[in-house]
Amino acid sequence: MKKKDYLKREIKHIDIKTFNAIPIIEQFDKTAFQARNLARAARIYDRMLSDNDCSIILCLAGSLFSAGLRKIVYDMVENNMVDIIVSTGAIIVDQDFFEALGFKHFQGSPQSDDNELMELMIDRIYDTYIDEEQLRVCDMTVSQIADSIEPVPYSSREFIKFMGEYLKEKNIGKDSVVRKAYEKNMPIFVPAFSDSSAGFGLVYHQWKLKDKPKVSIDSAKDFLELTKIKVNSGETGLVMIGGGVPKNFAQDVTVAADILEETVNMHKYAIQITVADERDGGLSGSTLKEAHSWGKVDEGSEQMVFSEATIALPLLASYAYHRGNWEKRESKNFNSLLDKKGGVTNDTKKGFFDQRCRHS
Amino acid sequence: MKKKDYLKREIKHIDIKTFNAIPIIEQFDKTAFQARNLARAARIYDRMLSDNDCSIILCLAGSLFSAGLRKIVYDMVENNMVDIIVSTGAIIVDQDFFEALGFKHFQGSPQSDDNELMELMIDRIYDTYIDEEQLRVCDMTVSQIADSIEPVPYSSREFIKFMGEYLKEKNIGKDSVVRKAYEKNMPIFVPAFSDSSAGFGLVYHQWKLKDKPKVSIDSAKDFLELTKIKVNSGETGLVMIGGGVPKNFAQDVTVAADILEETVNMHKYAIQITVADERDGGLSGSTLKEAHSWGKVDEGSEQMVFSEATIALPLLASYAYHRGNWEKRESKNFNSLLDKKGGVTNDTKKGFFDQRCRHS
Amino acid sequence: MKKKDYLKREIKHIDIKTFNAIPIIEQFDKTAFQARNLARAARIYDRMLSDNDCSIILCLAGSLFSAGLRKIVYDMVENNMVDIIVSTGAIIVDQDFFEALGFKHFQGSPQSDDNELMELMIDRIYDTYIDEEQLRVCDMTVSQIADSIEPVPYSSREFIKFMGEYLKEKNIGKDSVVRKAYEKNMPIFVPAFSDSSAGFGLVYHQWKLKDKPKVSIDSAKDFLELTKIKVNSGETGLVMIGGGVPKNFAQDVTVAADILEETVNMHKYAIQITVADERDGGLSGSTLKEAHSWGKVDEGSEQMVFSEATIALPLLASYAYHRGNWEKRESKNFNSLLDKKGGVTNDTKKGFFDQRCRHS
Amino acid sequence: MKKKDYLKREIKHIDIKTFNAIPIIEQFDKTAFQARNLARAARIYDRMLSDNDCSIILCLAGSLFSAGLRKIVYDMVENNMVDIIVSTGAIIVDQDFFEALGFKHFQGSPQSDDNELMELMIDRIYDTYIDEEQLRVCDMTVSQIADSIEPVPYSSREFIKFMGEYLKEKNIGKDSVVRKAYEKNMPIFVPAFSDSSAGFGLVYHQWKLKDKPKVSIDSAKDFLELTKIKVNSGETGLVMIGGGVPKNFAQDVTVAADILEETVNMHKYAIQITVADERDGGLSGSTLKEAHSWGKVDEGSEQMVFSEATIALPLLASYAYHRGNWEKRESKNFNSLLDKKGGVTNDTKKGFFDQRCRHS
Repeated sequence: MKKKDYLKREIKHIDIKTFNAIPIIEQFDKTAFQARNLARAARIYDRMLSDNDCSIILCLAGSLFSAGLRKIVYDMVENNMVDIIVSTGAIIVDQDFFEALGFKHFQGSPQSDDNELMELMIDRIYDTYIDEEQLRVCDMTVSQIADSIEPVPYSSREFIKFMGEYLKEKNIGKDSVVRKAYEKNMPIFVPAFSDSSAGFGLVYHQWKLKDKPKVSIDSAKDFLELTKIKVNSGETGLVMIGGGVPKNFAQDVTVAADILEETVNMHKYAIQITVADERDGGLSGSTLKEAHSWGKVDEGSEQMVFSEATIALPLLASYAYHRGNWEKRESKNFNSLLDKKGGVTNDTKKGFFDQRCRHS
Repeated sequence: MKKKDYLKREIKHIDIKTFNAIPIIEQFDKTAFQARNLARAARIYDRMLSDNDCSIILCLAGSLFSAGLRKIVYDMVENNMVDIIVSTGAIIVDQDFFEALGFKHFQGSPQSDDNELMELMIDRIYDTYIDEEQLRVCDMTVSQIADSIEPVPYSSREFIKFMGEYLKEKNIGKDSVVRKAYEKNMPIFVPAFSDSSAGFGLVYHQWKLKDKPKVSIDSAKDFLELTKIKVNSGETGLVMIGGGVPKNFAQDVTVAADILEETVNMHKYAIQITVADERDGGLSGSTLKEAHSWGKVDEGSEQMVFSEATIALPLLASYAYHRGNWEKRESKNFNSLLDKKGGVTNDTKKGFFDQRCRHS
Repeated sequence: MKKKDYLKREIKHIDIKTFNAIPIIEQFDKTAFQARNLARAARIYDRMLSDNDCSIILCLAGSLFSAGLRKIVYDMVENNMVDIIVSTGAIIVDQDFFEALGFKHFQGSPQSDDNELMELMIDRIYDTYIDEEQLRVCDMTVSQIADSIEPVPYSSREFIKFMGEYLKEKNIGKDSVVRKAYEKNMPIFVPAFSDSSAGFGLVYHQWKLKDKPKVSIDSAKDFLELTKIKVNSGETGLVMIGGGVPKNFAQDVTVAADILEETVNMHKYAIQITVADERDGGLSGSTLKEAHSWGKVDEGSEQMVFSEATIALPLLASYAYHRGNWEKRESKNFNSLLDKKGGVTNDTKKGFFDQRCRHS
Repeated sequence: MKKKDYLKREIKHIDIKTFNAIPIIEQFDKTAFQARNLARAARIYDRMLSDNDCSIILCLAGSLFSAGLRKIVYDMVENNMVDIIVSTGAIIVDQDFFEALGFKHFQGSPQSDDNELMELMIDRIYDTYIDEEQLRVCDMTVSQIADSIEPVPYSSREFIKFMGEYLKEKNIGKDSVVRKAYEKNMPIFVPAFSDSSAGFGLVYHQWKLKDKPKVSIDSAKDFLELTKIKVNSGETGLVMIGGGVPKNFAQDVTVAADILEETVNMHKYAIQITVADERDGGLSGSTLKEAHSWGKVDEGSEQMVFSEATIALPLLASYAYHRGNWEKRESKNFNSLLDKKGGVTNDTKKGFFDQRCRHS
């Protein structure tokens, strides 16, 4: 088989506007097990959207956009159904930015001959194919963006803004989450940014420049920025698809806020769709009840759903979309808050640390 | 119940020297299902240790050290059973460095009252308790280390070296992986460094300094450094416990190396212990066969084991320890390679990119 | 809390007629991972319904009816979307027959105080409650039915027919699968019949009668009867929800048919919705590809879906219902075939066994 | 490849006497997650063995014996480490009796060409191969046993006794659990007996005899017999490997006993090794805490271990074997109890049913 025979059946992104999941979710709500958990999660999300005081953090992990869920997130961004994204490099760079450059993902098979795929430079994600040569173009575009900006440390959010600006200037990627977020002043954080196509681009950038000043990505700055948003928000809600670094990072921000402010609320709402399991002690499957012991997530409005995301997210998002409570929400423009000089109060709460920092 | 009543039963770390898993593993090898997969993984690890030309990358994700597996990794570092570690901030900072400061983890229950725990400032990981007040001391120690060094970007590896140096100077943490790695010039990478107690410390450091120059953590530099190690090694083998960012990061390095050198081998050996599953398309459970399509892992000497790590790693590590093939290995001192000026060839392979970089 | 406070929120059964899953499934079909697998399974089921020559065996395991999926199966039976059911005693007796007697299932919580529940005689299934006292009534009704019939061995199918007749005579349970199947001459097999409320009833029946002749349930007769159906059908398709005994039993019938006839086809179509996993070697998660090695399931039209059933089955069934291909199907009346004297050819194929039976 | 090339590497059964898991389990006990759960389960099993008043029911599900765990169970039977077995037809007939006839299981690969296997009459279980032609011999041997006994209903236990007697008379299968149990008067129950190679044999037996009297398997009698054992025992403990029908059947017996006696204790001890998960509401993964709500399992001495059985059972069994507390135990000879006329009190407790049986 030739490469073009493998790369034939394009993944098409699900459009939550074209079907109304309200009747399904309402029936799920009267049942049991995961159907009911999904309905409960959908209702909590709808409550977040109805709560004027609540900023919504969407955490995304797993190969979600290559699997056809990109447009769902795009619609959530466009319609103010989310205020902040925390995600992985794979989703934001290898998948969203990649498609913005004009490339596609393709349906494949988990029973492929992986040796043949490798020789054809086709990468496989379970039942999906990606053209590795196109991915290299994506890497190099990141590298070129790095070459074009001032060689200092950036938060991943700042760098992703440049990526959005790049798309807008080239007038490509109109269906891109990166571009839409840029246009709406909505922050996207990728705490493990170099663990992706972006990493390849930045490695090339840094390696080429040898001892000259270089762009770097400062993940501590990401953490500080997200913390500042929390400090300047009232309530917050977490919508988590998958676990991993985005889940932990976004949960932790209430603890970090504790360092910069005396009074900060836990996340008031939290939902997670995941197939991970608590029994290995890993973070991805740790319960939201457990997160309460850490002071991260409040009790009462939290729900985990045990389902693979491609099935559960479309139902949850379609429900919330068709409920329409997002219509009263406005863009929070958190990028403006973060980028404005002196916009964030910055007074050290000495007392807290004097009291606690007893070691050494 | 009072705090001290919860924090009573210390986690004790498993010592692979005190029992010999060879007879068990040899019997497992004649059976089926995961016992046989574990035996096969143990034999592949032993082959890595016997292969003079192979550098071994240990990837660690999940709450492994708080669960009693810290001494296993310490023994692997001390006895040259591993050459590079790629891990999470939770393991390296919240758990290893935390215990090096004199703190402990405790046995608890998954059925705890998480509200009471929160009020007592006790954090829970499944069936384990941590004193949140002690964790804050850990955060602040990281902050103090950041205050004490030149305010420039560092790779996580460089920063973790300062943490090891701190322990050695204070003469604490003799059983610490961070300290032992420092003493042996062995690199530890944490690609999502700020997603941990270290993140809290660095956020505090950066926030306090307002507009003054600050320490930052450059994860692209991590990627470049690990790539340089790959370029300067012959064969490589991956020993992966859990999935997440460490798995992806270490696998990707062969692709990244492709950018800096014309000829580089895939990882020759790869084993993974995980409970994750390939069916959600997530990276943590993606098969090593799939990784072959990406040009990351070679075929033939790879094995996944479906088991929670606390059961499988002690058996695997005890087998390899008692086989003794590590005795002929020497410390690779990769920190010296990375820290020496001009030690890494740095010539851009223009041709490669000219050929591939067709976009824009 | 009192018993009536626990047993307040009734489980309501999902009605697939009230929402149309076609647009969702059609979009899932263009994506990846489990959404696509679900779409593929739905299309295969629709193909079974369109194939004039195909008899459809529905295998049900897990606590499906107590969780709100009972009406889905009722609608499938009523509309000739299934021709044979193979299930567990829990579903057919404890849940379907139980509700037919006028009892209900209730929404509860997995975090209940199970000791209090026990003292109140409330049984819990994950997040569902059942009144144990009502369940005892169900047990005893089975016992009374046994008392009222001739004391000989029955297949579970024959006994379940008496249960359907009982409901019809009392004119209760109009929404019952047992009653509707009885009315439509559709066989229901429960190969492990005594492992349920029926078992309690039969134990009581047998124990009371001491040495007198008793009703017994002959599971070998079940197997013979299902095999006869296979022998008298052309093609067969399996729709499996969960794994367990029903999956194995129904798959095995092609091998058993091999014993009674020379030419019999493997199951031409096979789909399964399950959260089980192949890596423990258990039957519930074993792949349909593996079933091909046994000569059970044909290649090409089989699909597993990794999803908890309460989410996936309503979508799959609604899709097939609204596609309407069942409209051309008629009731197969397999009970008439089995109950008619001499209706099944019965000539021993001596040659087969002479050839194979080489032992002893 | 030819058939003999596939069937080359025999599965060898693990011998728990040859390695001592006490030091490993004792270290696991000081840790967390599943290592600690396994240690706790091992200690509970050891406590069962030390409790003079406790009868131990071993529940076995999954393809355990084909995977190399047969000798572990043999040693448990021989050394009075178990008093009753409840299992599946696959384990007892297709695997134990099959090997007793002189056949073997072989190591294979999950990536096999299943079509080629089918054509060669090789059956695959994950990574294991079975010769289908030999399995047919096993089926027919069961059929011959059925031909040779009085044509009446039997409990599976009674039929399995005939199988043990067959082996003893032919003087084959010295390492067989079926034969050893027969010799020790230890009952083996298989509640879904026909769902196995035994089913094929019995189908052939019944089909051949047309309208003549036939052997049948009465699973209600199984339930009654196991209930009688419970009634005549003091305390009971469950050791469950996998879930499925055996788990449910053995748990239910305390509820069934409630029907024959006024006072009966719940199972005092209960441990389970499984990879199943409670979140689908299925019985296999349902917690032992949930079983308490049903009045099946007592609180306090129960433990679930999330592990695939081939890894966990050898450690658990070796621990208990080397602890030596089984040495004081004697064979309970429960077969003698069940087979003796009038050995079981049989007085109907009318009051109970009069009180509860309010329906109809």
